[in-house]
Amino acid sequence: MSSYMPPTDDIGFLLKSVFGFDAQIAALPGHEELTADFAIAVLEEAGRFCSEVLEPLNRPGDEEGARIVDGAVVTPKGVKEAYRAFVEAGWPGLSGDVAFGGQGLPRVVQILLDEMLSATNMSFGLFPGLTRGAVEAIAHHASDELKAIWLPKMVAGEWTGAMALTEASAGTDLGLLSTRAEPVGDGSYRITGTKIFISSGDHDFGGNIVHLVLARLPDAPKGVKGISLFLAPKFLLNDDGSLGERNAMSVGSLEHKMGIHAQPTCVMNYDGAIGWLVGEPGRGLNAMFTMMNAERLFVGIQGLGIAEAATQKGVAYARERLQGRSLDGARGPVPIIEHADVRRMLMTGRALADGCRALAIWTALQMDIAAGHPDAATRAEADGMVALLTPVVKAAFTDFGFDVAVLSQQVFGGHGYIREWGMEQFVRDARITQIYEGTNGVQAMDLAGRKLSLEGGALPKRFFDLVRRDVESAAATAPGAKAVWAEVLAALARLESTTAALQAASQSDAAAVGSAATDYLKLFALTAIGWMWVRMAVAARAGDTPLEQRKVMIARFYCERLLPQTQGLAAAIAAGSSSTMALPEDLF
Amino acid sequence: MSSYMPPTDDIGFLLKSVFGFDAQIAALPGHEELTADFAIAVLEEAGRFCSEVLEPLNRPGDEEGARIVDGAVVTPKGVKEAYRAFVEAGWPGLSGDVAFGGQGLPRVVQILLDEMLSATNMSFGLFPGLTRGAVEAIAHHASDELKAIWLPKMVAGEWTGAMALTEASAGTDLGLLSTRAEPVGDGSYRITGTKIFISSGDHDFGGNIVHLVLARLPDAPKGVKGISLFLAPKFLLNDDGSLGERNAMSVGSLEHKMGIHAQPTCVMNYDGAIGWLVGEPGRGLNAMFTMMNAERLFVGIQGLGIAEAATQKGVAYARERLQGRSLDGARGPVPIIEHADVRRMLMTGRALADGCRALAIWTALQMDIAAGHPDAATRAEADGMVALLTPVVKAAFTDFGFDVAVLSQQVFGGHGYIREWGMEQFVRDARITQIYEGTNGVQAMDLAGRKLSLEGGALPKRFFDLVRRDVESAAATAPGAKAVWAEVLAALARLESTTAALQAASQSDAAAVGSAATDYLKLFALTAIGWMWVRMAVAARAGDTPLEQRKVMIARFYCERLLPQTQGLAAAIAAGSSSTMALPEDLF
Repeated sequence: MSSYMPPTDDIGFLLKSVFGFDAQIAALPGHEELTADFAIAVLEEAGRFCSEVLEPLNRPGDEEGARIVDGAVVTPKGVKEAYRAFVEAGWPGLSGDVAFGGQGLPRVVQILLDEMLSATNMSFGLFPGLTRGAVEAIAHHASDELKAIWLPKMVAGEWTGAMALTEASAGTDLGLLSTRAEPVGDGSYRITGTKIFISSGDHDFGGNIVHLVLARLPDAPKGVKGISLFLAPKFLLNDDGSLGERNAMSVGSLEHKMGIHAQPTCVMNYDGAIGWLVGEPGRGLNAMFTMMNAERLFVGIQGLGIAEAATQKGVAYARERLQGRSLDGARGPVPIIEHADVRRMLMTGRALADGCRALAIWTALQMDIAAGHPDAATRAEADGMVALLTPVVKAAFTDFGFDVAVLSQQVFGGHGYIREWGMEQFVRDARITQIYEGTNGVQAMDLAGRKLSLEGGALPKRFFDLVRRDVESAAATAPGAKAVWAEVLAALARLESTTAALQAASQSDAAAVGSAATDYLKLFALTAIGWMWVRMAVAARAGDTPLEQRKVMIARFYCERLLPQTQGLAAAIAAGSSSTMALPEDLF
Repeated sequence: MSSYMPPTDDIGFLLKSVFGFDAQIAALPGHEELTADFAIAVLEEAGRFCSEVLEPLNRPGDEEGARIVDGAVVTPKGVKEAYRAFVEAGWPGLSGDVAFGGQGLPRVVQILLDEMLSATNMSFGLFPGLTRGAVEAIAHHASDELKAIWLPKMVAGEWTGAMALTEASAGTDLGLLSTRAEPVGDGSYRITGTKIFISSGDHDFGGNIVHLVLARLPDAPKGVKGISLFLAPKFLLNDDGSLGERNAMSVGSLEHKMGIHAQPTCVMNYDGAIGWLVGEPGRGLNAMFTMMNAERLFVGIQGLGIAEAATQKGVAYARERLQGRSLDGARGPVPIIEHADVRRMLMTGRALADGCRALAIWTALQMDIAAGHPDAATRAEADGMVALLTPVVKAAFTDFGFDVAVLSQQVFGGHGYIREWGMEQFVRDARITQIYEGTNGVQAMDLAGRKLSLEGGALPKRFFDLVRRDVESAAATAPGAKAVWAEVLAALARLESTTAALQAASQSDAAAVGSAATDYLKLFALTAIGWMWVRMAVAARAGDTPLEQRKVMIARFYCERLLPQTQGLAAAIAAGSSSTMALPEDLF
């Protein structure tokens, strides 16, 4: 098999030609000197690590899987060494706060590293990904004392993080959880309960593992308002900060999963484990959402990574595999990339991977602006965009990532079903991204419900106006492409009228939003990616390089062949909720 | 987990109320006495076998997998005994030719047994499914002598069949195959070569295994015209018909697959194996298509079976799993089936499973008419419909089956990703149905290319006219449902204009058909299933039973929420092939 090619050329085009990285980033204090060229050089180095160290471990790790030996997790051969090398090279702290030893690069650079990690070894990428989520929750909600103790080693990746939220009877509905925390009297708590689906709950990398655990205090009310967040490490610390005795937690078992076999997904038992409160009592869900939001973007990027990697493999195979005759019948056997239906699959993968990458970069830039711009109004504006786009990135990118994995597997024909070729692993691994960190249905409800009502309902309009401005200006400056851009404007019009209808219905028809949510999120995502293709095509208009020529062609494919799906989505939503809700439960 | 409920109520409704089974079947000589009630009684018995014997072996079989011990296949625990019980009960010969000991029931009954086999144990169902395909090829193309020797035991299921077509470098393009057959001089041949992806290539059920092998004679021309079909058994026969010495064939290895682990998919080595020609030299592809056509319907039915089984499990889980609050916020936690987005997933599964079953029955009835009606014109007409619908059933049913498996897995949230729950197995098993017996892309090319040109291009119009007549008559007799049926007529209009455009383009633009094919097949399938929903809703109009009430409601859901997808499909095809074909191969 061909090996992964880090998409740094595409990243360079996006950062420089599409998003004007240098100027945008220079407006953020602390990043005045940062250039796209520097970021690309960093990412090229990261890409080498991913393709040379992580990708070779991906299939063996899937076959061997993480396992339990003597009550502790053993990761597949080579993973421990790769993780230590990853830490040695300083990658965990890439975007970490400089106050805790991080390198302080913006999130937009971080997500591009995350994409490459996910493309080459999704199971591995979860270790630093979850650690970063835990770091964010601690940084935003914990006391200075806890921060000083835990963050430096976590930012460096010496210690890793895990999020212990889900219980067997409390998944999406965390209000049902029953793990409890009893105050010891010295400021610490004893945590007791069982959590399931705990990614990176244990490993054999050495160092500590910092669990963030949702639990109830003794006097807590029922439901979500009774939930608090606790920090409970695998090892308690000695006075000098070194690792001390084992905390009262253990791995009950590993989940037997469809994929991400190299990732130890644990059932965790907390048997009076010592922990400390993070944030206010009863505000655990709030703290948890800090890490969930960061993780949701991360999970969306996993979808992007799989889409890119699977498309690359599909293209490589389609160039080499000889079957059938050329379109005119004159030559044969020909590489299957000549066949129109194979091209359809590969073009779809390319159009979605490149489109998602562009939207990911735009969204991450908004996060950087929201976090660091000196002007409060600019920060708030960007923050709104992040709130709006987070469920879109999480759900649509992972749905597209799965779809593209399936399409690329299909390019391989029967070989795609055989483990040795690696394509079916993409499908199995990608599948979890649609489920964890809030199922894609939950994301869709978040978008179609809560997010549409933000800023008094004005937030989506602010986004749509931005899209319209860009597309209309593109159409004005490049009349040749006007027909193509008209497709994006038509999609946008569908999205706008659907949005208005959902906003109106949300007052009176609770089922309208729920029954429309998934279709709505897809309509939103397809339109937003269409906008990105307009921006890419405008930036590539000169067509001087092969990459620019490619962008112009794929933009047209996207608008002509994929964007029309928005017609059916808008029509389905317009039909209303009654047919979804009518069937009595016992008649299903 | 709840166990599988054979959908015999739905089958009864379809056979009696929708398709007038008794009258249709009575027109076929030999079936004058056959009634729907009898067929349903037979299927209820089969359903018990499937849910009591086969379903309990499904997950254990996936975990254990088929393996090789001392060069021979060992199937998972219990499979051998289940197969012998299946033969004892006479199920393999259900629709077999009475001349060879079969029970001679029509294909429409056979496919409903096949659905239940596929729903409860797809790996198991492949054994009788492939045997039947081999039987058809032998029955249609082999000499009377070969038929007399091999068919009785194969029809009874005492001996099984396997199809040895694919080679490592010859998949879709069988013209590239290199296995050769040398005449021995006594009418037999010695076959030498290696085949891959051979389902049921070996097993431990006892009896013989009859391989149908594509190979080249010494003087054969290159390409598909040089391919002949041979019958090569695992055991040669003694003069008294008993099993004699081992033929020179062996299992090289088992493929490591994404799913159907209990099914031994073999790499087969033929080392001068003795075989006999089936049909004329150089006409192997023709004979192979006889079995492929039967198998394509069978594979489509596998998709239906998975869709039904996965939907049942999703519904059962959604009724029991408590998370979140009721729509009005008053109650909680509530069964998740109350949530609109969960209903969307389950309604989609129900609408597609029921819709595919109806279309499967209609198509199988056409096959029975094509095979047995006394009037030649009626036979020819039905035969055309079967030719048109076969790629639709194969590709669309398996795509929908996979989609529904993924949706139903999603209903389970995180638990859906865990092997113990069985939902991820549906996804892994279903995935192969989109690939084998001709990938779904190949099916789409067959439909959009070859099938649209049959009967001088008049065949599709004949089908569309039938659909229009039914839908218009439904709209006339039930004005209340007129708006719903208008959606089907709109979809039909899209299908008709798209068909005309593709027929026109096929003369001048070879890429037009290829780039449109997959979207076109989906447009065709959605419309055809819409037609089935009209017929079901008309038959259920009285609404006297819960099942009838359900049909009317699901018909509306299908038309309002799923059928609008045809808008985007038609628009994408109308945009033409140029954007799919433009990108140079080195720019992907």
